[in-house]
Amino acid sequence: ARPRVGYFYTGKTGSEIITEKLMKYKVETFQSMPIVVKEDDSAYDAISAMFLSDVGTLFAVDQDNNLVGVVSRKDLLRASIGNQGLQDIPVHIIMTRMPNVAVCYPDELLVEAANRLIDKQIDSLPVIERSNETGAKVVGRITKTTITKAFVELARNELM
Amino acid sequence: ARPRVGYFYTGKTGSEIITEKLMKYKVETFQSMPIVVKEDDSAYDAISAMFLSDVGTLFAVDQDNNLVGVVSRKDLLRASIGNQGLQDIPVHIIMTRMPNVAVCYPDELLVEAANRLIDKQIDSLPVIERSNETGAKVVGRITKTTITKAFVELARNELM
Repeated sequence: ARPRVGYFYTGKTGSEIITEKLMKYKVETFQSMPIVVKEDDSAYDAISAMFLSDVGTLFAVDQDNNLVGVVSRKDLLRASIGNQGLQDIPVHIIMTRMPNVAVCYPDELLVEAANRLIDKQIDSLPVIERSNETGAKVVGRITKTTITKAFVELARNELM
Repeated sequence: ARPRVGYFYTGKTGSEIITEKLMKYKVETFQSMPIVVKEDDSAYDAISAMFLSDVGTLFAVDQDNNLVGVVSRKDLLRASIGNQGLQDIPVHIIMTRMPNVAVCYPDELLVEAANRLIDKQIDSLPVIERSNETGAKVVGRITKTTITKAFVELARNELM
C-alpha cells in the first residue's frame, strides 16, 4: 500500500522516466547541416564532395534547390564497379529518387527519425521544412551518427 | 527537507536512472556477426562481399584468422577514384592496419563502444575476444546501426 503521509511517490518506473525524457527530443535540436549536390553533377564530383565534407550521404537538389533525391556511399560504390566512367554518370541516374526518399521534419521526435533509419535500412534522412510551398526544402540531416551521439550524451546525463 | 516517515525516497533523479540502466548493457548482448575478408583479396572482391552481406565495413584477417585491418566503404570509394584497377589492389593496401584499428571487447559497456565510434569518427568496431593467445580473434561487430537500434528499443521500453 502506498503511504499517504509526508511524501508522494510519483509512481513512475525507470522505464517510464526514460520514455518521457526521450519524448522531449526533437529532430531540429539534433540535426546537422545538409550537404547537397546538383542532380546533374557527375558521380565523380559527388565522391569528391563526400570526401571534402566527410559525410556518407548527399542530398541531390534541382535548380530551384528542391530535394529530388539522395545519393549514398553505397550508390557511388555500385557505380564505381560498373563499366561506365564515374565522370560520365550524372547523380540523378544512381540516386534514390523522390518520392521514394525517406525524410523527416524538424518538429518530429528524434526517436521517430531513429526508427525510420532502422526501418528503411538507411544511414541518413534529409530534414525537410514543413510548408505549403511546392517542392521540398532541405534544412538539415539526421544520421546514425546523430543518434549514436545522442545515445552517448544520454548516458553521460548531458541531455536535459 | 526529505520526509522521514512512511516512505523512503531513493533520491535518484530520472537522469541517474537512465545512466544506471545504460550501465547494464554489454557489447556481447548487442553485437552482430562480423563479416571478414582475407587481406590478400582484391578491392573488387571486398566491394562484392560488402554488397552481398550488406555491411559498410569489413574486417581483414590473415591466414590464421587473426584481425589485421579494417576496410570501410570510404576506403573502397577512395580506391575506386584512383588510377589503378580495383581488381589489382589488394585489401591490405587500402585498409586501416593494426594496431591503428579501434576495437572493443565483449564485456565492455555498449555506451563505451558508442563513445569510441564517435571519438574515432568511424562507423564500426570489431569485437575482439579477450585472451592470452597471440593474435586477435574477431567475434562480432558493433556499428552505428547497433547503437541506433538500442536507442529505439530504449525509447520503446524493449530493453530490460
